[in-house]
Amino acid sequence: MPPQNIYDDPEFFAGYARLPRSEQGLDAVFEWPAFQRLLPAALEGKRVLDLGCGMGYLARWVRTQGAREVVGVDLSERMLADARGRTADPAITYLRSELESFTPEPASFDLVVSTLALHYLADFAALARRVAVGLVPGGRFAFSVEHPIYTANGTWEWHKGTGGELLHWPVDRYRDEGARPSHWFVDGVVKYHRTMETYVNGLLDAGLRLVRLEEPEGEGALRAMHPEWGDERRRPPFLLMAADRPG
Amino acid sequence: MPPQNIYDDPEFFAGYARLPRSEQGLDAVFEWPAFQRLLPAALEGKRVLDLGCGMGYLARWVRTQGAREVVGVDLSERMLADARGRTADPAITYLRSELESFTPEPASFDLVVSTLALHYLADFAALARRVAVGLVPGGRFAFSVEHPIYTANGTWEWHKGTGGELLHWPVDRYRDEGARPSHWFVDGVVKYHRTMETYVNGLLDAGLRLVRLEEPEGEGALRAMHPEWGDERRRPPFLLMAADRPG
Repeated sequence: MPPQNIYDDPEFFAGYARLPRSEQGLDAVFEWPAFQRLLPAALEGKRVLDLGCGMGYLARWVRTQGAREVVGVDLSERMLADARGRTADPAITYLRSELESFTPEPASFDLVVSTLALHYLADFAALARRVAVGLVPGGRFAFSVEHPIYTANGTWEWHKGTGGELLHWPVDRYRDEGARPSHWFVDGVVKYHRTMETYVNGLLDAGLRLVRLEEPEGEGALRAMHPEWGDERRRPPFLLMAADRPG
Repeated sequence: MPPQNIYDDPEFFAGYARLPRSEQGLDAVFEWPAFQRLLPAALEGKRVLDLGCGMGYLARWVRTQGAREVVGVDLSERMLADARGRTADPAITYLRSELESFTPEPASFDLVVSTLALHYLADFAALARRVAVGLVPGGRFAFSVEHPIYTANGTWEWHKGTGGELLHWPVDRYRDEGARPSHWFVDGVVKYHRTMETYVNGLLDAGLRLVRLEEPEGEGALRAMHPEWGDERRRPPFLLMAADRPG
């Protein structure tokens, strides 16, 4: 199966571009406070790789924090065109590539980030190995994905009562890893369900050392603006992890 | 709230004593093959602490593998009496203590194990800190607990169809950590739900290095004898982790 490039589907892109995270950027993002906690304390002078960079919000943000060089990788031409249109900074480079095969030069990055992209990949362990090779000793990999609790059943819906009320989140097929087709703006968006075991051991088997795991709820001022995020506490939508290449 | 000592309830103990894992020991235990993978390759000469040792099956097994000294800790007098009645080995010692306060001497054990006991404790992070202190540099902590997916909702039941068929496992209240009363042989057995985040970060914050995470399904010959274990693949009943004190 060829790598999925749903973001270049015009109908999908039109829907995605209207999301708060697309229109307003990181400050509108549910998991952004938690993701920031996974980053190194200082980004000054760092070389950063963003796998699945999309519109480039994170790439531009790490640059504002003093990163020396930022490389964003994405398969979608629409996303890259959007990202390129938002900056003329010569320290930010955008590359078009499948994440399934993109292989950074050995020890070429201090930080590799990825936000809500890796659940589109069938093989997480192989990705973790490529990331580990690309990191300098002491470098960090920080990423977010859809949570295994969220992806397991593959119906993407709360179990509801007769009045439409949210009764609970259904979990099923947990150990049956693999493709979970979904309807997200369009039909046929394929995400991959993996167990927590596969995510954690994939990092460890790549020689990385786990430094943090988060299952965030909405936080701070943004949480106060979104009362509906209370339901996200009932089952975690996202899983975030940070792991270091031993120094 | 005083520590729970449900295992000294005669009705509970009578039920527990009839479980396959009580009558037949480790070889009847669903998660035993996975738990063994978390142990150091060689147990020869090791000093081992078992937190919540129950009837002592694991304590006796590590001794057969060459462990030099084994200390089993449990709060239940009935469990300890049973365990003591099964061995006269002077290298195995049983101590009665609450796990909430038991504090090993610094750097006194090469291996600390715990099987399906720590979900009875309210504070996992504090337990992890005490374990880390008790381990020698390079020592290992390996444990199993009920899985956060299993404990979150607190109803301990599949969501069933009108014919009684298992539709899915309900997850709710995931980020609301705390007591989940259950009926297990008797009413009022209190287990604690915790997030994956709390388990993993509790180990990391105690200075331990995560080396493995498992969400086992039934395996091998035993699995073939238990067709009903197929349903356990639909949501993980147990979470197993191994973490090392850096050497």
